[in-house]
Amino acid sequence: MVLIEHELEVRWRDLDAYDHVNNASYLTFLEEARLRWFRTLPEPWRTTTAEPVVARIETSFKQPINYPARLLVRLSTVRVGNSSLAIGHRIEGVDNQTLYADGVTVLVWVSPTTGRPVPLPDGVRSAASPRAE
Amino acid sequence: MVLIEHELEVRWRDLDAYDHVNNASYLTFLEEARLRWFRTLPEPWRTTTAEPVVARIETSFKQPINYPARLLVRLSTVRVGNSSLAIGHRIEGVDNQTLYADGVTVLVWVSPTTGRPVPLPDGVRSAASPRAE
Amino acid sequence: MVLIEHELEVRWRDLDAYDHVNNASYLTFLEEARLRWFRTLPEPWRTTTAEPVVARIETSFKQPINYPARLLVRLSTVRVGNSSLAIGHRIEGVDNQTLYADGVTVLVWVSPTTGRPVPLPDGVRSAASPRAE
Amino acid sequence: MVLIEHELEVRWRDLDAYDHVNNASYLTFLEEARLRWFRTLPEPWRTTTAEPVVARIETSFKQPINYPARLLVRLSTVRVGNSSLAIGHRIEGVDNQTLYADGVTVLVWVSPTTGRPVPLPDGVRSAASPRAE
Repeated sequence: MVLIEHELEVRWRDLDAYDHVNNASYLTFLEEARLRWFRTLPEPWRTTTAEPVVARIETSFKQPINYPARLLVRLSTVRVGNSSLAIGHRIEGVDNQTLYADGVTVLVWVSPTTGRPVPLPDGVRSAASPRAE
Repeated sequence: MVLIEHELEVRWRDLDAYDHVNNASYLTFLEEARLRWFRTLPEPWRTTTAEPVVARIETSFKQPINYPARLLVRLSTVRVGNSSLAIGHRIEGVDNQTLYADGVTVLVWVSPTTGRPVPLPDGVRSAASPRAE
Repeated sequence: MVLIEHELEVRWRDLDAYDHVNNASYLTFLEEARLRWFRTLPEPWRTTTAEPVVARIETSFKQPINYPARLLVRLSTVRVGNSSLAIGHRIEGVDNQTLYADGVTVLVWVSPTTGRPVPLPDGVRSAASPRAE
Repeated sequence: MVLIEHELEVRWRDLDAYDHVNNASYLTFLEEARLRWFRTLPEPWRTTTAEPVVARIETSFKQPINYPARLLVRLSTVRVGNSSLAIGHRIEGVDNQTLYADGVTVLVWVSPTTGRPVPLPDGVRSAASPRAE
């Protein structure tokens, strides 16, 4: 189930001294798409009692990304848990359909005060669940 | 087998709007330690016929990192392949022994011209292999 | 004389722990617009004998930039020297006409081998000069 | 009057595709030294009624910075105003005494609620004033 397909532009500063987009920037691209998805939700995804933290990221880097490039970041549901949401990601080229990277990001909603896991906010759960619509 | 234990200082700019070190910075910390290790090798780790690329990164984020903090990045051998090297990583607090993150990074040495995998440089293989010393 | 008007998207990672776009990101925005302008030139702006370096940047920060935002970076000629080009910059909001920052960037073309100033490439000079068109 | 001399380590990620430290990273270095200075003050530099914002930065880039390098960032008082503090900065090499950059940063303390300038906090004023000691 697709959560969002977000387009973004590579910046020259994303390159490192090897003249390819640095690995850390991939995480910034994923984060950007994730936040854009959150902002599409009709209900709050971050409250005084529940906020998401990134618990795990697995990414395979398939091809180097050059500059300039316009990218498509596709996020989809992998698994909806009680407190966690596993989101599949793919980073592709808008113009060339190249798959640059794929993987999974696991978010866990925790209490801002205790840091302990809490149930997913309803708005997140329903938006990420296949039967939500 | 430990490859390097590299200390580094968190910068305020590593924080994001949630006031914790951003996930992408963790990859920068790992990269920094990796390059410092490369520089300790007596033989070239990057030549006209073989250069490393990051093929995969898996990281579990255990605890948020605040500012300021001095970190210890520990890299160790997980598996030495024909063209690849899997490096285990741990990011810890120098002062508090907190484990902030752990995981695995897989590097593959490729031909700069063809992009195809090539054998690990001897200097890398021997330095990363348990029996090397 | 306007050199380029380049639109770009603020990323969440441009924010710092004060929840505004960090000052360093402004320089990245200027750099991005500058490189986009270079890429519009019909003649090379960077050769084996002449490459630009940033010699000086002066920027006044007028208003904090929040997320999300779409920005317009306007670059214009301030002064064309023998080896140098002074470029005025303004960073504005696309939607709200807010002026977020303005200032001047001075580029100097130098020899990659000696680091000494060399004449501006013709393509740069003519594109940046008021009478060029 | 010297405010702080802060040493920091260049990271490989500070490099850009031209294999030198990117200009934006210089601002991060200055920010890091500035915050370290703030943290040395015996009285609060940021309160519910007064917080500093960067109003202006002027920097001359004298020499490219390579990797690796250990830098010394020296901040000194240029002018203490009613609401503003102008801080001179120099970025030098720890090992080679090279001057990489110098310039001035102007901070203005403003009300977090109105954004209007407010008087410098006493602790900042006294620490930055030549006669303070």
